[in-house]
Amino acid sequence: MDLFIGLDLGGTWLKYGLGDGDGRLLTRGKRPSEGQRGREAIFGSMINAVKELLGVAKEWGEVRAIGVGSPGLVDYQRGILMGGAPNLPGWEGADIRGVLEREFGIPTFADNDANVMALAEARLGAAREAKQAIFLTLGTGIGGGILIDGQLYRGAWFAGAELGHTVIKFDGRPCNCGNVGCVEQYASAPGMIRTYWEILAAKGMSPPAGLTTEQIFARAEQGEVEARKAIEDTAYYLGVALASFVNIFNPEVIVIGGGVAEAGDEFIRMAEQVAVRLAQDVATRGLRVVRASMGNEAGTVGAILLAVESYATLVSG
Amino acid sequence: MDLFIGLDLGGTWLKYGLGDGDGRLLTRGKRPSEGQRGREAIFGSMINAVKELLGVAKEWGEVRAIGVGSPGLVDYQRGILMGGAPNLPGWEGADIRGVLEREFGIPTFADNDANVMALAEARLGAAREAKQAIFLTLGTGIGGGILIDGQLYRGAWFAGAELGHTVIKFDGRPCNCGNVGCVEQYASAPGMIRTYWEILAAKGMSPPAGLTTEQIFARAEQGEVEARKAIEDTAYYLGVALASFVNIFNPEVIVIGGGVAEAGDEFIRMAEQVAVRLAQDVATRGLRVVRASMGNEAGTVGAILLAVESYATLVSG
Repeated sequence: MDLFIGLDLGGTWLKYGLGDGDGRLLTRGKRPSEGQRGREAIFGSMINAVKELLGVAKEWGEVRAIGVGSPGLVDYQRGILMGGAPNLPGWEGADIRGVLEREFGIPTFADNDANVMALAEARLGAAREAKQAIFLTLGTGIGGGILIDGQLYRGAWFAGAELGHTVIKFDGRPCNCGNVGCVEQYASAPGMIRTYWEILAAKGMSPPAGLTTEQIFARAEQGEVEARKAIEDTAYYLGVALASFVNIFNPEVIVIGGGVAEAGDEFIRMAEQVAVRLAQDVATRGLRVVRASMGNEAGTVGAILLAVESYATLVSG
Repeated sequence: MDLFIGLDLGGTWLKYGLGDGDGRLLTRGKRPSEGQRGREAIFGSMINAVKELLGVAKEWGEVRAIGVGSPGLVDYQRGILMGGAPNLPGWEGADIRGVLEREFGIPTFADNDANVMALAEARLGAAREAKQAIFLTLGTGIGGGILIDGQLYRGAWFAGAELGHTVIKFDGRPCNCGNVGCVEQYASAPGMIRTYWEILAAKGMSPPAGLTTEQIFARAEQGEVEARKAIEDTAYYLGVALASFVNIFNPEVIVIGGGVAEAGDEFIRMAEQVAVRLAQDVATRGLRVVRASMGNEAGTVGAILLAVESYATLVSG
């Protein structure tokens, strides 16, 4: 049987799995990514994960390719990290393909983690069957993915699909990226928390320390109006960005994942209503806005699918 | 010789031309579009234009297809106007393909006018050779076009590429589309004029009546600080939207046409500088922001190219 390895690199954990040509997981694991200890340590963790999976793979068949999802801007063609991974110091410039291919002699493909998750949702998850789709992951930041005619769209130099850095208010909150008013500053977890803080501060109330979005959702559930307003405002900001994406892409489906979205369908429904009200009517008629369905395995399964599809392209010429 | 007819429908004029398979214009003309007199009158004007061109075509060869660029949202697959053409009352629902095919028995293809102009720039103009490109036409509104892997991207139901309705300030100026803060309200001709008015009003100066963007550029040229500031602000607003498009699409080239852009390269350079400063570094490295180069013929040539390429797809299966 043809087997494929997927590595899902994060700031804290490296998740990994072995799958078949349909992206079915045969086994999976997780170990510290060593993200704070520099490039060599991260590669060490990845190499140990691959060795472990190669050991398991022997009884099943042969590993044809390795797929890697990494934070930051990844040059998909060369498999090199071009930048934008602040949680992995020293990782910029990492030659993911080169190092793993030299180590294992197995074709290796790397892509942005948001693209890899989008691939999992596109092939096996919430956007299955869709040709034109948009993917957002609302977490510490906002990751983006774009499906065009059934394929991931990466841009001229693989730096596209940074949907979190779409401006929704040019005189708004400064963004880490150097721009101002990116939707990431409004609809990510820190964005929602900041909105909640501002609502409390405007009423002379002092915000609690170490707040999470889960707590904001719980407070709203208990009837706290400030928490409720923070959620509504965040859904509105997200809806504004979705309206722009609808006008730009006219997608069949928008898939929303990540911690903020997992809090419940109601948040997604609120954002959808805003988007449908603000976007051009014709573009919203068949639109579906849905939660991501692949859960915690999206990154690993997506990395396996990246390996499967990239390998198929490689061998077909 | 295989010949192709292009019709470029506007609110006031219908421009039309006869071209060869490379989009070279052999002859062209222009007549009132009868845009205010309803659907039958518009079709009458189009039919007369085609008859005129068919008469000319006889000496050259055979007309294989007709291409039509129309304001509004056009269902490219069916050749029907789905909506969004406020300057052409009664035009919504017009079966462009059906009416012209029944009249002439020649395969007819219709698309949004901004898409058709983008096609002309992509094949013969400022984005020649580019695979990933973005097109904006700054006029009474803002038209948009998206080139992905060398092909126009139209969205799941042909309602995409409405780049003018990308929000840049969610609490900003109300837009005709029902949304708030679309870039069309800031970087179109009326948007620039409004910005100039606001600058004058803030200084207690009364704005002149019937002002055009040409006059604002002329006043800035003469050293008027308020006009200068209106141009700089407009370039900034445009640059903000360009930065979003760069982060989303990572295009090789952004082509800007229309009245506001024709005022000069300096305006484009200002907007480009803003975009390069605000967008992700990696995505701006090879980026070019250029003026449209096809001028007044972009619509007619684009409609001919629409006919050429759609006909080729038709006969190839």
